[in-house]
Amino acid sequence: MTTDLRTLLARRQPGQTLEAPFHTDPAIFRADLDIIFGRHWIYVGVEPDVPDEGDCMTVDIGPHAIIIARDDDMELHAFHNVCRHRGARLLHTPTANIGNIVCPYHQWTYGLDGALKFAAHMPADFDKTCHGLRRVHLRSLAGLLFVCLAETPPADFDTMAETLTPYIAPHDIRNCKVAHAEDIVEHGNWKLTMENNRECYHCSAAHPELTRSIFAEGFGFAPVGAEAEAQTQRFHRLVDTLHIECSRNGLASREIEHLDDRVTGFRTERLPLEDAGESETLDTRVACKRLLGNLHEKRLGALSLWTQPNSWHHFMSDHIVTFAVFPLSAETALLRTKWLVHKDAVEGTDYDLANLTAVWHATNRQDSDLVGKAGAGVRSSGYRPGPYSPDTEALVEKFSAWYIGRMAASLDA
Amino acid sequence: MTTDLRTLLARRQPGQTLEAPFHTDPAIFRADLDIIFGRHWIYVGVEPDVPDEGDCMTVDIGPHAIIIARDDDMELHAFHNVCRHRGARLLHTPTANIGNIVCPYHQWTYGLDGALKFAAHMPADFDKTCHGLRRVHLRSLAGLLFVCLAETPPADFDTMAETLTPYIAPHDIRNCKVAHAEDIVEHGNWKLTMENNRECYHCSAAHPELTRSIFAEGFGFAPVGAEAEAQTQRFHRLVDTLHIECSRNGLASREIEHLDDRVTGFRTERLPLEDAGESETLDTRVACKRLLGNLHEKRLGALSLWTQPNSWHHFMSDHIVTFAVFPLSAETALLRTKWLVHKDAVEGTDYDLANLTAVWHATNRQDSDLVGKAGAGVRSSGYRPGPYSPDTEALVEKFSAWYIGRMAASLDA
Amino acid sequence: MTTDLRTLLARRQPGQTLEAPFHTDPAIFRADLDIIFGRHWIYVGVEPDVPDEGDCMTVDIGPHAIIIARDDDMELHAFHNVCRHRGARLLHTPTANIGNIVCPYHQWTYGLDGALKFAAHMPADFDKTCHGLRRVHLRSLAGLLFVCLAETPPADFDTMAETLTPYIAPHDIRNCKVAHAEDIVEHGNWKLTMENNRECYHCSAAHPELTRSIFAEGFGFAPVGAEAEAQTQRFHRLVDTLHIECSRNGLASREIEHLDDRVTGFRTERLPLEDAGESETLDTRVACKRLLGNLHEKRLGALSLWTQPNSWHHFMSDHIVTFAVFPLSAETALLRTKWLVHKDAVEGTDYDLANLTAVWHATNRQDSDLVGKAGAGVRSSGYRPGPYSPDTEALVEKFSAWYIGRMAASLDA
Repeated sequence: MTTDLRTLLARRQPGQTLEAPFHTDPAIFRADLDIIFGRHWIYVGVEPDVPDEGDCMTVDIGPHAIIIARDDDMELHAFHNVCRHRGARLLHTPTANIGNIVCPYHQWTYGLDGALKFAAHMPADFDKTCHGLRRVHLRSLAGLLFVCLAETPPADFDTMAETLTPYIAPHDIRNCKVAHAEDIVEHGNWKLTMENNRECYHCSAAHPELTRSIFAEGFGFAPVGAEAEAQTQRFHRLVDTLHIECSRNGLASREIEHLDDRVTGFRTERLPLEDAGESETLDTRVACKRLLGNLHEKRLGALSLWTQPNSWHHFMSDHIVTFAVFPLSAETALLRTKWLVHKDAVEGTDYDLANLTAVWHATNRQDSDLVGKAGAGVRSSGYRPGPYSPDTEALVEKFSAWYIGRMAASLDA
Repeated sequence: MTTDLRTLLARRQPGQTLEAPFHTDPAIFRADLDIIFGRHWIYVGVEPDVPDEGDCMTVDIGPHAIIIARDDDMELHAFHNVCRHRGARLLHTPTANIGNIVCPYHQWTYGLDGALKFAAHMPADFDKTCHGLRRVHLRSLAGLLFVCLAETPPADFDTMAETLTPYIAPHDIRNCKVAHAEDIVEHGNWKLTMENNRECYHCSAAHPELTRSIFAEGFGFAPVGAEAEAQTQRFHRLVDTLHIECSRNGLASREIEHLDDRVTGFRTERLPLEDAGESETLDTRVACKRLLGNLHEKRLGALSLWTQPNSWHHFMSDHIVTFAVFPLSAETALLRTKWLVHKDAVEGTDYDLANLTAVWHATNRQDSDLVGKAGAGVRSSGYRPGPYSPDTEALVEKFSAWYIGRMAASLDA
Repeated sequence: MTTDLRTLLARRQPGQTLEAPFHTDPAIFRADLDIIFGRHWIYVGVEPDVPDEGDCMTVDIGPHAIIIARDDDMELHAFHNVCRHRGARLLHTPTANIGNIVCPYHQWTYGLDGALKFAAHMPADFDKTCHGLRRVHLRSLAGLLFVCLAETPPADFDTMAETLTPYIAPHDIRNCKVAHAEDIVEHGNWKLTMENNRECYHCSAAHPELTRSIFAEGFGFAPVGAEAEAQTQRFHRLVDTLHIECSRNGLASREIEHLDDRVTGFRTERLPLEDAGESETLDTRVACKRLLGNLHEKRLGALSLWTQPNSWHHFMSDHIVTFAVFPLSAETALLRTKWLVHKDAVEGTDYDLANLTAVWHATNRQDSDLVGKAGAGVRSSGYRPGPYSPDTEALVEKFSAWYIGRMAASLDA
């Protein structure tokens, strides 16, 4: 009874929201898992999730269950979280520190590089080298971890990494620690969570805490009304000032946007913040006394970084907030947020956790409520695609166009 | 693996219960939502649900999310509860009193007549008149509200309204208030809830409270055994007496039955009650001192009114009980019951809420239990259609025949 | 998108675990319910579940809802648990003692032999003999109850019964009582629960309580390492000693294995136990002073009995533990365990319930955890069939091969 995916892709109207089946149909959800999450670079976490030898982290990208492990040579590896014997899930906790990966069922034992080291009761001609854990491609972009489940991953990761490293590197993710993490189940398709992130049209009404520090203009918002011109001019003056200062400090800061013209889409820009201009906190000042990396200047605004299909990040002088979206079902998604500070920062002394997390903890809940309302609407029979605002929702359109393009390209291949 | 709907419709045996897939198959459930609930007049509530200017009510008929709004000119409107911008659900509470319908996501603002009044950030050539809320047909039958989601609703609503208004009007729904409402989730397909309502074969064993006042004979029941003839004669004497008295008072009362020969099927009759004969209460006396409309006589029995596919109603001199059935899933349905009294009646003075609701509160739970047992049975592999009693379940057969006929007619069209 | 069942059956590699769809695909689950559970002899319980006249037990085998009733002549009957009138489920509790089976909806009344005795309101030409409860085939194998939902059940039940009766009969199930029962929902397909039972490769690591008494070698396990030969020799000496002793006592004890060469597959052997060698208890001694039947010797080891598709049993001199697996969904199954002792044994005097149930209560939980881990793994996209150990998992292979063979034979028929 549902319309064919090819038909839906072909008839998508640029500038309009996606038709309902993209947000509700289990068959299209399976296609999303296969094409988008199975064949693109997916952001999964940060190196500080697995800082030490023997550290493992599990990540579930829909039905793709993955282990990320750091071996004794500090090398990172990614594998399917499935035993090669009877198929049992190997690791069941979000993180672990272990010497080997031992299957809980029959104790088949794998090294942290995935090699099968021990399997009792197998015959003499059993070839252990054919039964190592199945590998998943893994890359670290200056500390941001991406996996790709395809045999041959998109080749443009390197270009993205070269472009973005100068922006990210000064924040020195590898010398950070995860001060806090939270997962929220949002009651809408993963693309609704992404669409919500790709515009700030809703910010002024929905996000009183966040808009103390950020400028909606930095996220595609074009002000309207009597004060529009003055607002825009002020914002651009602040941007210009920040970029000049960054340039003086050797920090990359100018906008680079390839959301819709690459397989691995991304966008970045260093943006000014309001008032004290230091951080995305309730008082716009740094939440952590110990600055990141070798940074000495507090007032660096916020480096905004987006990747397609599933992440966004805010890098300030004192902390980083990093967001990953994982599909759960056609109509639900997981939003995973982590707050990073310098690894030597001491809670209670250098930072107060409640203060550090206040803005995005509140903002996430507000966004989750809106995504739930969008999810409830698009599953109603009365829903029809509506128009994006050309000036204020252009980056949402880029997300949707990227998605449609990637799906269509994959079906054509 | 499931049998085709057309085949199932064609091979249905009159006089027998429906085959299992009609009560369990998600594909047939979707066809029910489309054909029965998407193209017929569906009872959704009463005018006293939205008595004042600015009152809104939300109703979910399966995936059809609807707002019913009363504007400042006291006109009623029905719309899809979905924003024309990004598709967010507009209203999330069962009722609201508001000046405009404002989308919680980006504040697109609609009048209570559905017109789009405000949408920020849209370009100069954006036509607001093309982006009003999508309308749903709405009719009030002497205060009972019906919607139809089809573009062209069944044309026979007017005939039904003309026929039924003389029966209903004296109870003056528009000058009632909703004294109490309750929702029950029944664990059976919506048609099992309807079938349960369309016979009183089960009443004597299941409903000790209800049978204090009602005569099963008024609902298709034919008594058997030694006292059958005496019982039947007594009932018909009481019916005749009531009808004569009603005629004297200018009240319509005689049976009209079009359950199975109309697109918009219905049945009505004013029926006598036991003992005091005043109301469907535990002591058969009125539960509310203030009678409805301009009624002065307490002893008017109960006006029974049924509509296809999803409602039944009992109108007494002092109060009204009104029932709507909404499909939730192939195997669950929502039964929504409302108790209405005169709007000037004062709780605690004119009526005691527990006394007012006692009979149907208990009866609903008993019926819900039976529907759950029927639901559990028909999903068992051992279920086969069984015979309706020709004398006592003839009105269930009419419901089933109407359903089969409407589904077949729609597939043929 | 899922692969066709015939293709999956045809390409199954002997010696390897089944492909993921056999454990996750709802369509294959429905085929399992139809072919395996709908056309084979399914173990459902024991005669002591319904010891007396009028005793009824309900069993749900997936969508097959069944009543097992003992009539006033002590005859056992099995029926579909569905009324022939409107299809209501008749019995809703696990057990009942009743004179007739009365439908809760309209009081249609059936004898304990399933005959329709009373149905009000039906016309003169209504034939009650055509509306008795729909029968299900039922057989008792020395007190173990099996049903078959097919019209013509597999003919080899008698051969199995003749073969197994000499093993089971001395434990005299009919003179037992159910001392305790427990249901566990396992988070894996029913075949994962069965596979887990068909090997003891996992026992040493997973089951500290159970391995106090049992020898893994009795369940297909081949020891490895330096002590393998000594272990094997010791086990075989104990087996030989036990079988000689049993032979002296007139007890059948030698292995008979037809797991994979019969429609109704089975396996049995009387196996020695460790230490005191009396029972599967924490101290390896009998948990019940009153021995079963006419047994006088405590040290009879444990009679292991398996049937395909869904049961296993341990018969000791003092008690019996009996296990049935029922499918719930593609990814969940119910494990039902019952502990039987002599019907005259008195709790607190002859046996302590905690001591009686300690080993298998713990073992069930450990197995349930492992089945859940296997279930989680095989639903991951990274799962691929893996190799069974030829020496230690040969009986798992027999289960899988039996399953594949039965499915293929049914599709071919």
